[in-house]
Amino acid sequence: MKVPRRRVTGLICRRLFSSTPQRREIRALSELSDRIHPSYHETKDNDLLSLQWPSPPRNVLLVKKENTPQTTEAVIEFAKHVHSTYPSISLIFEDPAAYSLHTSLSFPIYAALTKPHPSITSSTNLSSKVDLVATFGGDGTILRASSLFARSPSVPPILSFSMGTLGFLNEWKFPEHKRAFRELYMSGAPSSRHSVMSTQDAKTNYPPPPVSQNARHTIGNGEWPPHLGASLGPTRMARVLLRNRLRVAITDKNNTLITPPHLHALNEIILHRGASPHLTHLTISISGRILTEAVADGLIISTPTGSTAYSLSAGGSIVHPLVKGIVITPICARSLSFRPLVLPNEATVDVRVTGDRGGAGVDVSIDGVGRQGVGIGMGVRVWGESVGRAGDIARREGKEVEEGKGWVGGVPCVIRGQGREGASGDEGWVGGLNGLLKFNYPFGEES
Amino acid sequence: MKVPRRRVTGLICRRLFSSTPQRREIRALSELSDRIHPSYHETKDNDLLSLQWPSPPRNVLLVKKENTPQTTEAVIEFAKHVHSTYPSISLIFEDPAAYSLHTSLSFPIYAALTKPHPSITSSTNLSSKVDLVATFGGDGTILRASSLFARSPSVPPILSFSMGTLGFLNEWKFPEHKRAFRELYMSGAPSSRHSVMSTQDAKTNYPPPPVSQNARHTIGNGEWPPHLGASLGPTRMARVLLRNRLRVAITDKNNTLITPPHLHALNEIILHRGASPHLTHLTISISGRILTEAVADGLIISTPTGSTAYSLSAGGSIVHPLVKGIVITPICARSLSFRPLVLPNEATVDVRVTGDRGGAGVDVSIDGVGRQGVGIGMGVRVWGESVGRAGDIARREGKEVEEGKGWVGGVPCVIRGQGREGASGDEGWVGGLNGLLKFNYPFGEES
Amino acid sequence: MKVPRRRVTGLICRRLFSSTPQRREIRALSELSDRIHPSYHETKDNDLLSLQWPSPPRNVLLVKKENTPQTTEAVIEFAKHVHSTYPSISLIFEDPAAYSLHTSLSFPIYAALTKPHPSITSSTNLSSKVDLVATFGGDGTILRASSLFARSPSVPPILSFSMGTLGFLNEWKFPEHKRAFRELYMSGAPSSRHSVMSTQDAKTNYPPPPVSQNARHTIGNGEWPPHLGASLGPTRMARVLLRNRLRVAITDKNNTLITPPHLHALNEIILHRGASPHLTHLTISISGRILTEAVADGLIISTPTGSTAYSLSAGGSIVHPLVKGIVITPICARSLSFRPLVLPNEATVDVRVTGDRGGAGVDVSIDGVGRQGVGIGMGVRVWGESVGRAGDIARREGKEVEEGKGWVGGVPCVIRGQGREGASGDEGWVGGLNGLLKFNYPFGEES
Amino acid sequence: MKVPRRRVTGLICRRLFSSTPQRREIRALSELSDRIHPSYHETKDNDLLSLQWPSPPRNVLLVKKENTPQTTEAVIEFAKHVHSTYPSISLIFEDPAAYSLHTSLSFPIYAALTKPHPSITSSTNLSSKVDLVATFGGDGTILRASSLFARSPSVPPILSFSMGTLGFLNEWKFPEHKRAFRELYMSGAPSSRHSVMSTQDAKTNYPPPPVSQNARHTIGNGEWPPHLGASLGPTRMARVLLRNRLRVAITDKNNTLITPPHLHALNEIILHRGASPHLTHLTISISGRILTEAVADGLIISTPTGSTAYSLSAGGSIVHPLVKGIVITPICARSLSFRPLVLPNEATVDVRVTGDRGGAGVDVSIDGVGRQGVGIGMGVRVWGESVGRAGDIARREGKEVEEGKGWVGGVPCVIRGQGREGASGDEGWVGGLNGLLKFNYPFGEES
Repeated sequence: MKVPRRRVTGLICRRLFSSTPQRREIRALSELSDRIHPSYHETKDNDLLSLQWPSPPRNVLLVKKENTPQTTEAVIEFAKHVHSTYPSISLIFEDPAAYSLHTSLSFPIYAALTKPHPSITSSTNLSSKVDLVATFGGDGTILRASSLFARSPSVPPILSFSMGTLGFLNEWKFPEHKRAFRELYMSGAPSSRHSVMSTQDAKTNYPPPPVSQNARHTIGNGEWPPHLGASLGPTRMARVLLRNRLRVAITDKNNTLITPPHLHALNEIILHRGASPHLTHLTISISGRILTEAVADGLIISTPTGSTAYSLSAGGSIVHPLVKGIVITPICARSLSFRPLVLPNEATVDVRVTGDRGGAGVDVSIDGVGRQGVGIGMGVRVWGESVGRAGDIARREGKEVEEGKGWVGGVPCVIRGQGREGASGDEGWVGGLNGLLKFNYPFGEES
Repeated sequence: MKVPRRRVTGLICRRLFSSTPQRREIRALSELSDRIHPSYHETKDNDLLSLQWPSPPRNVLLVKKENTPQTTEAVIEFAKHVHSTYPSISLIFEDPAAYSLHTSLSFPIYAALTKPHPSITSSTNLSSKVDLVATFGGDGTILRASSLFARSPSVPPILSFSMGTLGFLNEWKFPEHKRAFRELYMSGAPSSRHSVMSTQDAKTNYPPPPVSQNARHTIGNGEWPPHLGASLGPTRMARVLLRNRLRVAITDKNNTLITPPHLHALNEIILHRGASPHLTHLTISISGRILTEAVADGLIISTPTGSTAYSLSAGGSIVHPLVKGIVITPICARSLSFRPLVLPNEATVDVRVTGDRGGAGVDVSIDGVGRQGVGIGMGVRVWGESVGRAGDIARREGKEVEEGKGWVGGVPCVIRGQGREGASGDEGWVGGLNGLLKFNYPFGEES
Repeated sequence: MKVPRRRVTGLICRRLFSSTPQRREIRALSELSDRIHPSYHETKDNDLLSLQWPSPPRNVLLVKKENTPQTTEAVIEFAKHVHSTYPSISLIFEDPAAYSLHTSLSFPIYAALTKPHPSITSSTNLSSKVDLVATFGGDGTILRASSLFARSPSVPPILSFSMGTLGFLNEWKFPEHKRAFRELYMSGAPSSRHSVMSTQDAKTNYPPPPVSQNARHTIGNGEWPPHLGASLGPTRMARVLLRNRLRVAITDKNNTLITPPHLHALNEIILHRGASPHLTHLTISISGRILTEAVADGLIISTPTGSTAYSLSAGGSIVHPLVKGIVITPICARSLSFRPLVLPNEATVDVRVTGDRGGAGVDVSIDGVGRQGVGIGMGVRVWGESVGRAGDIARREGKEVEEGKGWVGGVPCVIRGQGREGASGDEGWVGGLNGLLKFNYPFGEES
Repeated sequence: MKVPRRRVTGLICRRLFSSTPQRREIRALSELSDRIHPSYHETKDNDLLSLQWPSPPRNVLLVKKENTPQTTEAVIEFAKHVHSTYPSISLIFEDPAAYSLHTSLSFPIYAALTKPHPSITSSTNLSSKVDLVATFGGDGTILRASSLFARSPSVPPILSFSMGTLGFLNEWKFPEHKRAFRELYMSGAPSSRHSVMSTQDAKTNYPPPPVSQNARHTIGNGEWPPHLGASLGPTRMARVLLRNRLRVAITDKNNTLITPPHLHALNEIILHRGASPHLTHLTISISGRILTEAVADGLIISTPTGSTAYSLSAGGSIVHPLVKGIVITPICARSLSFRPLVLPNEATVDVRVTGDRGGAGVDVSIDGVGRQGVGIGMGVRVWGESVGRAGDIARREGKEVEEGKGWVGGVPCVIRGQGREGASGDEGWVGGLNGLLKFNYPFGEES
């Protein structure tokens, strides 16, 4: 991210407008309509959820890996396809990408300042506008896209395309992009929804997904183009894995939270001594009970999704993303007996910087983005994001319960698959273990 | 268990009866009334559940560590206390213990063949009679008590007493036995129940625990002695942690289950090459998808509860018992890259013996009890026991849903604590980590 | 090794003789001339030693992997080549191989009972007859060949051929067998020796390898065929890596050795609980000082050569075979803090079975061969074989010093290479790490 | 080391001299006589060497832990004792300690700039003046003392005192300081030496340690005070463990060494990404053969002495200090299969920075002292210091051989013990493992 940034202003937009009769234009995010929230519903025969739009999505954010020509070409191809096939959709790019790409596109695009830095608050606008995200790159790009919504309790669904090696996060192959996007776009469209429901009603106890007042109204306004769903079978709905995130906040010397709103991590929170020559002293408490003091280079608090990232390098176990847990892995602990831990998602993990030497504090980074230092006496508090049926969560948190709203929380990742039957949360995971991690490569055998 | 066994027969009972006017008698299990099932309900401010008897428990199984005089004395003291304070309660002992103890007790006791061996089917009677279990020993004794119900989907609540070192499984200290037993016995008795309910109704969304038709009826028949609850506060209910078990079945060469009913493991299932000089070749599948082939001395499939047992020695992570997961840890794998795994509780794990050398097969043991060998081509299938609200589980499994029945599944362990506020699933776990495992003992520092 | 064995007797030999006019004959080992011992000398520019025969080797033991037709064919091809090109050489086979192969060979062969079992003492004859060993198979076959000399302080040089995958132990590829054997056979023959010496004398401080009285005498009796060395350069000598072994003896309850003569291990000594359900309690002392008590499934005491075998599966470090050390690795220790150890080769390691439960003792195996059980109170004593200049070792052990004799001890492994420049102890090791162990396979990177 | 430094100049010395009639004076190092080198000789019954001074040592460097009043008092007590009992000895302090201590001492002391930084070359003077070093603190202080001689191939003997916890490096307890110093001071004094020799001659093959021409001459000049040895038995000689160091040099893009003279590490060389967000790519070669590329946070190249320091935190094995080896341990490698390695001391280890992202290079630190960064394409070369008999080393390196000179190389650490019998390299090591590392703390057992 070393390219100089220019702010998106009306002035720039006008200038671009006048000089580009082909309307190679960059527009501001604020001109977009408000975000449409899909709902997520259980299905009987699959661990994944089915996604249902109340009305067709309109604002699509494209996030791409930087500095790779192949990816840039793919994004342009994808953008042209979406613009021509789904003319009502607006495409949003991150700030630098918007400026480098808009001359290749003959239609207006939207730009957003997306650098995920705490001091730039305007980035929070994204979560009020973006209906869905498409990423082009690998797991790192998905992680970056997720970071753009680190302050938001509600992340739009992410459709991710890999340019080559498939990663852990169930990317689609780029040549599948037309089918993948149509499937996500149409998911929950009336024709197919009706069929699904009647099928389900007949054989299962699942209640039909509720069509809320709001949804009906929206359908009246924004309807799906009838021709698009023609070749889609009645059960063709996008399958979603809600990946748990961790919520993290900084605590001060009185153990009070000092950073509302909280940030969310899809992979991990890392505390590290950084450039300090002294080991960190970190007192770890679980739900208010002191567990231990780690004297170490640092500590990783990871989601199951992040268990195959840095935590693995530090010696942690591999935890399936459907396990609800918090993974604690020390980095080079000064102990022979600090084995990695997996704690329940409901636990509150407090890590307090207790060292007294030098007062250097520790560096905190969230999903690879350096956030801020934490001084002696301060700490971080981490707890699992609640992912589940809206009613259950509300009930557990003592809030008003609205049944039937579907599932909430987490990062909705659209899982690649051949319709309902093929999509599975395990496919990418098993593939990642074997393809990426070279898990359990056996010793050779003699001839 | 090398003492010779005698069968409990009417003959023996009669003989004992006639020769012991003090009624130092051993009676058969079949004379006991049928088991009373408690229900388990969520509470708002605690991860633990509260236990509620529909009527006072009557049949109590006592399980003790073998060959330790201190434990024998404790059991006798406990038995005398229960007999004198709760005269309607019948005490059941395991077969060898019954014979060695009954002369020390001036009242009749009941004996059961409890050797947890697949060929002895009479042991299943226990699960139709025992209302609650009290154990005297350590974690190993709790494990043995749990093994007695390895074939049963429903385990009675276990109240465990430690004679010395506290273990991982939240034992009570023996000097607390009077209070502990009264708390469990009275849990859900009308007076206290009423108070709890009105308190909760006022401030939370939790529905009052349902008083079923069956429960009301039973209360009419078996009532709690009024004087016992006098000193108990209105919120004094026993707190229970439902520990997940694993279900395990043997599969044949056609991948069909061949051992109904399934066995359950509280700690782990171990596959090991045993005396064979050849490494095992074990193909591991997750929900039908092949994950990897482990070439190893063996493989451990463990619950979170078992993660601090043998799995830990083999290099596994420490997983909190409230995490719902299945822990896979290889034993001396012939690979540099077989890192331990944590899979979701919902996964079906198939382990197939694929080696072809010698055809020796593998030894399978469940919670430390050797069950049987599994030959080449055969395998074991393991999946997590469903623990949760009865309604949710029924809904997930496509069965008729009966809401409000409370939680089902798992091994109900009564957690030590000072009433509602103090009981916590973490206390024993954190204590076990630090006290038993010497977790994260730091290197010394120079003076 | 399940085929029934027949003893090699005069009777059998005679019978075979009379019935096979083509002299497909099996002769007894005792008819062979006594063993010729080569000497091993340092060279300036290589970690390996150069081998020097005092006279041409005559008795060659062939050891092959069992039950693999490809290997059998290779052995026959090799045997025919040696018989036709080096007619003065006698070929020795292990007992079962001799009987299955001799009908394929038109010349007499020799057979030896080689089952490496403590109760068969006649196997020790091998070390008084065999001048060199050729193995056909993989690392396991080399290990078995080495086991045949487990009781001998002096192992003949081993030339090993791999049929396919190259192992850790620097095997030659089978198609190289003619060159490899000639190089070993001629190593130290007068013509080349002279050239080497004058070259070395001119530029280094190394004394010329001594031509002992005995050697001169032997050369008179057994001379190298002049034509064989024609194409060999003056510096073409076989390069040898002396692999350290461990010496092991059983100690009784008074800590006295009870098993003279000692056995030697090329890979490792394993103590394991075997079929016992109880963990072993093993008190480990180093040079008389108690280090720790291991409570574990077992313990591995390994050479650096064995560090890439079972010790690696149990979590041990990878130790290069030129490091002089003893590797201690626990098997599933009941401790979070038992990290593997590397002790000096000079240390005396005592492992005493201290458990008192059940009195089961432990099973001891040496290089994969089960030797015997060791009871409670007994133990094993292990110390490194002295490998080095004969003079230094004699001096250290307070014996009479005879300088200039070259190096002694260890298992002399002939290292594959392109003459002096190419042969290196690292080649096989680095190759084995990367090819066999899949050492440090990196995680995939996103495209 | 944050106190401001003043240079030791003639001016300052004179001023101090004139103002302090009690001669509380700081003198410059250059005024001291040249260093006396002891020799080290094998003994038959011990792994340790015996130290022999050619003439009494005169210049003693005192190194103390910073900022601990207890240590400061101990140093003052020690200095007063040495000054009064051994009046011919001069005491040297590090620069800041000299200035803070000299007013507490009524005699002149010497000061040296000791900050071990590559840019301060005057520190090398120490190795031409210091006869022996006494340290007061723990393992860290010994490490610092050793760092002062990082550029010198010959380190003076180090006598180390611990103030409290005994560390790994065999410290003496401070209350033993009078005996310990006398034993070291007198080691090899004529009376005892004579006795030792005649004893040894009678029963062993060890040649008498040679009394060189130089030694005889020096004895004429500086003789031991006769009364001091009175109570020392004839065999009372200081026992020394020569701890191997690693030599390290920076290599440029042409693989040429660019930092003569080499530095030496007693513990380890660490390459780390430091503040860079990118993992290091480090290609590791052994003696010119590429082993692997580590993609990791960093890499530790450690001595056996350092194997219980940072390498242990990163997952390395524990290697006894008498093992001659180089320990390679990755820091959070991005691989499941990078197991720690132990290479032979004779290996040349090249680590080349091969990453191309960002060009950030890596930070290199030696024994905890940050030395310099190493850029992309550059590297470090590490090889073991030769420790052994001078003759053997000269022969191996093709230099002129002078037999009988004793052992050379390494850091000579005076080992605590009760005379010859008690001193052992294992005592501190075994004690450190159990006392400091909490090695193999067993899991608790149930009562």
